[in-house]
Amino acid sequence: MTLQAVLARVDADLTEATERLFGLLRIASISTVPAYRADCDHAADWLVQDLAGIGFAASKRPTPGHPMVVAHCDGPAGYSGPHLLFYGHYDVQPVDPLDLWDRDPFDPEVQDTPKGKVIRGRGTADDKGQLMTFIEACRAFRAVNGTLPARITIFIEGEEESSSPSLIPFMEANAAELSADIALISDTGLFQSDTPAIVTMLRGLLKEEVTIRAASRDLHSGMYGGIAANPIRVLGTVIAGLFDDNGRITIPGFYDGVPELPDALRAQWQGLAFDHAGFLGDVGLSVPAGEHDRTPLEMIWSRPTCEINGIRGGYTGPGFKTVLPAEAHAKISFRLVGTQDPTALRAAFRAHVSAMLPTDCTVEFTSDGDNPASQMQIDHPAFEAARAALSEEWGVAAAYVGCGGSIPIAGYFKSILNMDTMLIGFGRDDDGLHSPNEKLDLECFHKGTRSWVRILDRLAG
Amino acid sequence: MTLQAVLARVDADLTEATERLFGLLRIASISTVPAYRADCDHAADWLVQDLAGIGFAASKRPTPGHPMVVAHCDGPAGYSGPHLLFYGHYDVQPVDPLDLWDRDPFDPEVQDTPKGKVIRGRGTADDKGQLMTFIEACRAFRAVNGTLPARITIFIEGEEESSSPSLIPFMEANAAELSADIALISDTGLFQSDTPAIVTMLRGLLKEEVTIRAASRDLHSGMYGGIAANPIRVLGTVIAGLFDDNGRITIPGFYDGVPELPDALRAQWQGLAFDHAGFLGDVGLSVPAGEHDRTPLEMIWSRPTCEINGIRGGYTGPGFKTVLPAEAHAKISFRLVGTQDPTALRAAFRAHVSAMLPTDCTVEFTSDGDNPASQMQIDHPAFEAARAALSEEWGVAAAYVGCGGSIPIAGYFKSILNMDTMLIGFGRDDDGLHSPNEKLDLECFHKGTRSWVRILDRLAG
Repeated sequence: MTLQAVLARVDADLTEATERLFGLLRIASISTVPAYRADCDHAADWLVQDLAGIGFAASKRPTPGHPMVVAHCDGPAGYSGPHLLFYGHYDVQPVDPLDLWDRDPFDPEVQDTPKGKVIRGRGTADDKGQLMTFIEACRAFRAVNGTLPARITIFIEGEEESSSPSLIPFMEANAAELSADIALISDTGLFQSDTPAIVTMLRGLLKEEVTIRAASRDLHSGMYGGIAANPIRVLGTVIAGLFDDNGRITIPGFYDGVPELPDALRAQWQGLAFDHAGFLGDVGLSVPAGEHDRTPLEMIWSRPTCEINGIRGGYTGPGFKTVLPAEAHAKISFRLVGTQDPTALRAAFRAHVSAMLPTDCTVEFTSDGDNPASQMQIDHPAFEAARAALSEEWGVAAAYVGCGGSIPIAGYFKSILNMDTMLIGFGRDDDGLHSPNEKLDLECFHKGTRSWVRILDRLAG
Repeated sequence: MTLQAVLARVDADLTEATERLFGLLRIASISTVPAYRADCDHAADWLVQDLAGIGFAASKRPTPGHPMVVAHCDGPAGYSGPHLLFYGHYDVQPVDPLDLWDRDPFDPEVQDTPKGKVIRGRGTADDKGQLMTFIEACRAFRAVNGTLPARITIFIEGEEESSSPSLIPFMEANAAELSADIALISDTGLFQSDTPAIVTMLRGLLKEEVTIRAASRDLHSGMYGGIAANPIRVLGTVIAGLFDDNGRITIPGFYDGVPELPDALRAQWQGLAFDHAGFLGDVGLSVPAGEHDRTPLEMIWSRPTCEINGIRGGYTGPGFKTVLPAEAHAKISFRLVGTQDPTALRAAFRAHVSAMLPTDCTVEFTSDGDNPASQMQIDHPAFEAARAALSEEWGVAAAYVGCGGSIPIAGYFKSILNMDTMLIGFGRDDDGLHSPNEKLDLECFHKGTRSWVRILDRLAG
């Protein structure tokens, strides 16, 4: 009876909930750009105030970077069920190129589109709109029952889009306060936009910057062309040399710790009937470009990758300059899986690149951080409870899926706080994360909130 | 008697001549960047005024781009010797990266260095300092004799560093006015920094911009990494695929029209005892990086090349962004020799790159112009006269040499005005053409001016 009343409350409150979300979306909390520091602070204050309004003991907690928000609320009197920790992040990606947005990224609105109503704005899907689904679920319980259904801690950071420099020290310093029985995160998506999903496999990430140098200064190609080493050409050769003809990465030892998919999981993934043609077609592509002997789902969930994320060298302005540059630069990242060891891989990558250099060329490497892959323990009873709740709300059997992205906090919850994590998100593939015109479907915001109501109801037991 | 008096005048006037050059060097006449349009115009005005001051009928001549300067002066009364045309350019290369300059590129000064006094600033060697050696020689003749020694036309353009778009139309429209018996250009260098040289072989140039595209928008590598085509990786593969393991260029037909060196020229070049270790050592290199079976002088004078002059794609700012970019871009140029046909090579290059593209990738090409290689007819008597004058001034036998650079105007003088060209320059290998901290040795400015006095004296007959 209570469950139905709370779900009805969510339905009746949708317009108000959307307006509340707009308040948070209007704050330009871009964590990676120093000019938005005050906005990040403002977003933390907004959350503290909102959580205090629904009965949480909420506080803004300083860090050397952007502040954390931590909030606690007991469950009903005599509650003896699990203590739940919900994690989200209030910071967002930069909005450039701004001219590709249809409107101000920080002036959200609900728009009618051929595919239905969407909430448009930076942070709608990643992650403000998603974290508010959980808070709105709490608000609805409180409105109906006067209390939350379970003992809940909410932990929100403001540095997720800038490598979370303060996260590990903060978790270590506040380990007792942040420890709970299980962690919940809403920063992922539905599978194929319609099937509710719990992520049980997250790729890790290793980021390297590479600078190749040859001559001691830029040279004129009329004088030195043909006799002097050209760092851009060398970098091109290095990039080409990272892959073999079958798309496999050539770094010695790279595939150490990369597990083959268990037969049961392979069978379940085949049952998902992933529409890779549609997935690629949405962005103008037609064929999977990864390892030749792997399925599309393996490529994006369970296989490691090497991607060149940026490159520059020589003259890149308008017109032409016949220069042989002194150096060329690339940003290269690896998505990791299984038990691939970032430290060993970094050393192997650097040795492999160094071995490809011709005489007179040198290379400098800069690390931009790393984190290993994560694998959830789905035999924890909360996983089946959440899966049942999601299946009920969406009318489709929820799936255990992989995720190509890296959400390092799930690994930290395990390693620092010894907690398992359930990643349950409501984004769709066309949300435009990190891109212009980011959106969250209004249906996802609404049913996401209803999903958390059902999950909390089941987890509270 | 006159010759010695004019040379003495050059010596006595060196400080004043340097100050005049500073006046021209202070004008930031960067032709390739539209923001410097007024500066280019200013440089043309400066030259008109300076030439008028030494008796030339000088005028600034508009073009759709930057203006030309054309100036005429008769020789002594009753002069019956050859009509000489001197060509130079007042425009300069961009100055980026500015932070590698020791001082403002447009605030020239004479600096003491361990190797002697240098004139430091953008355009000192290429080409303002060199063109002023000829003008200062004229000024000295006029100061001593009241007239120039020969009938002279001076023709100075302002688009040499941006592919000279107005040059051919202007020469065609003013062919009668610009026709003379022989053309003189001072935009090259001494051989090995000490041996005066006349260039008899110039490489051509073909410039192409290449943009490779894959997805319709930038993608998140967490979602699409491993399955989507990455244009930077494709571009790296294309660049690597332009060369074979012996450093030869792989474009089909690329070596059509590339002559083997005649035995006599090969013998003369061997006699020059080119110090390639020193040439490379000056810029921090040690081994020739070109075709494995060619000599260093062949690599820089008589073999064609392919160089990557610029590359960019994805995120190149500080920090990291795990993006798969929608496109990647490169500027690629070829130095041409012999009778290589730029039009055929452009088509062959484009076909070769297109054939290397994987599915889902497209390529767009933009031409930045081209010109074929040139070969001078050294049996014209002016060549031996100039060689004798240079040998006398420098105390070393002057050499006929090749030039790795492209000075297309020498070809146009032949094809449009049917004139031979003598390229006689006074730069040194460490001048830093097109680079930060460009300089011209004060000795080169001084002896260059004296060289022109001697050459004019001999050519006037």
